[in-house]
Amino acid sequence: MRQQSVTLREVAHRAGVHPGTASRALNPATRELVKPATAERVLAAADELGYEPDLVARSFRTKRTHSVAIVIPDINNPLFPPMVRGAEDRLAQAGYVALLANTENDSRRQQRIFDQMRGRRVDGFVLATARRRDPQLAALAREGMIISLVNRTTDSRAHSSVTVNDAEGIRLAVEHLRSLGHKRIAFLGGPHDLSTGLARYRGFLDAMGVDPSDGKAIERLPIVTATMFTIEQGLRCTRHLLKKRSRPTAIVAANDMLALGSYSALDELGIRCPEDVSIVGFNDMPFIDRMRPPLTTVRIPAYEMGTSAAELLLERLECPEAGVKALTVDPELVLRGSTDRPGGIRGSATPRT
Amino acid sequence: MRQQSVTLREVAHRAGVHPGTASRALNPATRELVKPATAERVLAAADELGYEPDLVARSFRTKRTHSVAIVIPDINNPLFPPMVRGAEDRLAQAGYVALLANTENDSRRQQRIFDQMRGRRVDGFVLATARRRDPQLAALAREGMIISLVNRTTDSRAHSSVTVNDAEGIRLAVEHLRSLGHKRIAFLGGPHDLSTGLARYRGFLDAMGVDPSDGKAIERLPIVTATMFTIEQGLRCTRHLLKKRSRPTAIVAANDMLALGSYSALDELGIRCPEDVSIVGFNDMPFIDRMRPPLTTVRIPAYEMGTSAAELLLERLECPEAGVKALTVDPELVLRGSTDRPGGIRGSATPRT
Repeated sequence: MRQQSVTLREVAHRAGVHPGTASRALNPATRELVKPATAERVLAAADELGYEPDLVARSFRTKRTHSVAIVIPDINNPLFPPMVRGAEDRLAQAGYVALLANTENDSRRQQRIFDQMRGRRVDGFVLATARRRDPQLAALAREGMIISLVNRTTDSRAHSSVTVNDAEGIRLAVEHLRSLGHKRIAFLGGPHDLSTGLARYRGFLDAMGVDPSDGKAIERLPIVTATMFTIEQGLRCTRHLLKKRSRPTAIVAANDMLALGSYSALDELGIRCPEDVSIVGFNDMPFIDRMRPPLTTVRIPAYEMGTSAAELLLERLECPEAGVKALTVDPELVLRGSTDRPGGIRGSATPRT
Repeated sequence: MRQQSVTLREVAHRAGVHPGTASRALNPATRELVKPATAERVLAAADELGYEPDLVARSFRTKRTHSVAIVIPDINNPLFPPMVRGAEDRLAQAGYVALLANTENDSRRQQRIFDQMRGRRVDGFVLATARRRDPQLAALAREGMIISLVNRTTDSRAHSSVTVNDAEGIRLAVEHLRSLGHKRIAFLGGPHDLSTGLARYRGFLDAMGVDPSDGKAIERLPIVTATMFTIEQGLRCTRHLLKKRSRPTAIVAANDMLALGSYSALDELGIRCPEDVSIVGFNDMPFIDRMRPPLTTVRIPAYEMGTSAAELLLERLECPEAGVKALTVDPELVLRGSTDRPGGIRGSATPRT
C-alpha cells in the first residue's frame, strides 16, 4: 500500500548484488555477514539512489525511533492536556514524536501500554502515572528504558522527575483558610500510594502543627482519604466528612477533581459554598475558574512541568550516563469564589451569631 | 537493551543455515530469495524454539501492526476524551492498540502526524479532524490507508463516518428558545470548512425559516462565524454580536467551547445569563453542567460515537473491500440554567415591562 520511490531491489541492482545481500548490508545487525567491500558498495548505492527505508525498517536497523511515549493516568482530568502539550512541544522541537496513552489508573492497562510501547521501540517514556512503589516501572527501567516522571514520583527516586512542592501548596491553602477565620479545617486527601497523595497529606499534618507520629492527634483531625483522584471519590468522601458531629467550615481537597466532588456533595445536602463551607482545590486545572463557584485552588505550572519533564528525558537520551535530576516547582494560591469567612451552617445545632 | 529469549542466530543454527538466510526466510517479503525447502526448515526451527520477534520486527514481515492512530483536533476540548475512550475501548477489545495524537487544528501538524503514523505502519486511522475538503486526508486514502471519521466528515463522503444530525440539534435549540418566548435569536457559528460548522449553520437557517439562497434574509439574521471552535473565538464573536443595534435575547452557539466564550463576553459587559441573554451550546461536553450557569446544550453521545467509529474501521480492516458506511446519530437537548424567558437587557433603550 505504501509507496517508496526507491526499492531495495534497485539498490541491489545498482550495487550488483543479490537483494538479500543488500538487505543484510543495510542492516547494522547483519552487516558483518557481508564482505566489507560489498557492504560498502551497497551503502554507496543506497546513498546515490536516495534510498529511504520507512521508519519501521529504519528503526529495525538504527535502534532509535525518535518516538517517546507519554502516559497519563486519566484522560478525563483536564489537568493533563496542558502537561501533555508541554511535553509534546518540547519533544517536537527535538525531532521526536509523542505517542500518547492513558492508563485509566488501571495497572493492568499500564502494563499493556508499557509492553506495546516497548514493542514499538519508543526511545523513552514521560510518565505521569508513577506509583510510589511501581514494579512495572522498575522493570521497564531495568531493561534500560529511559524514563522521566512528571507530577508524581517514586520512593526510589531512581528516575528524573518534575514534581510540585506539594506540602507547600497545602500549607498555602490552610493558611489562607486560617486567615479567613476558619478553625475546623478538614482534609480530603488522595491515595497514599501516590507521591502526591502522601506529600499533600503530610503537608496538611504539618500545616495543622500535628506530628506525623502522633496517632491520637491525627485521629482528632477531620481527614478522609479518597482511593482515587476523581469526582466520584470526592463526592463519597465529602458526604462522610459532612456527617461528622462537628462539621468542618472548610475543606482542603488534595486536587480539583476531588473538590468538584465536594461541590456535588454540598449541592446534595443543600449546603452553600462558600457561605456555609469553604473549599480549596489543588492544580488549577482548566475550566475550574468557570465552575459554580469558581474554585480557590493551588496552581501548578502544568505546561512548564511537561516541557521540563521532556527536557530531562532528552538530556538522558543524548547522554544515557547523565545523572538523574529531580526538579521541584513551587505552587501558588489562586483566590476565587469558593472561600470566604466561616458562616453559619444551616442545620447546625448552634447557629452562629 | 531489550531481551529476547531466542535469537535469530539460534534459529539459524537449529535449521543449519546462515543467519542471513534465516532472516530472509522469516521475512515474507524476502522469502522467495530462499529455496522453499530451506525456508520450510527455518520456519519449523523458529516454531520449535518459540522464536518470538519483537513487534517492530514482526510488523516488518506481516505488514500488520495492530495499531491504529486516533487523531483529535484539540486536546483542550473536553468533548474528545470520551470519544477517544470509546474508540480505544473498542479497539482494545479487538486486540488493537491506539496511538493518540493531537493536531491543534494546525494542518502542518496534521501532516506531520499523518507521516509519522504512516511511518509507524498503523493499520488505520480514526480521525476527528476532517475538513470538508482535506487534501492530506485524500492523499492518505489514496495510499490505501483505511480511515474512519468521527464527528466531522468530508464532502467527498469517501470514508466511513459517524456524525451527528447537526441540523436537528440546532433545530432543537432554536425551538426551545422560541418556546420560551425568544424572538431575537442569534447564531454563533463555527468554521464553514468543517462539516459541523456548515451543517449547524444550515440548520440554523432552516430553523429560522430562511432559504439558504436568500442572501437578503440571511443578512437580517444576527449571525457571527468563528474561525475556530474555541473559547477565545466565542468571546470575540459574542462581543461583536452584543454590539449589534438590536441586541439578541438568546444565542445559539455551535459548540460548548464557543458558548463558554459567550459567558466570558457577558461577564465583561455585566450582562446576566439567563436573565438578560439565554445561551444554548452544542455537545454537552464534560464539566459543562458544572459551569456558572450550567449550560443548556445539545447532547451528542461522544463515547458511543467513538466506539462506532472504531467498529467501522475494524470492519474495513477485516475486509478492505467492505463498503463505506455513514452513520448518523441523533442529538438531544439537555435543559439547564443558561436558558430562561427573555428578560430586560440592562442598558436597553426600551426596558421590558
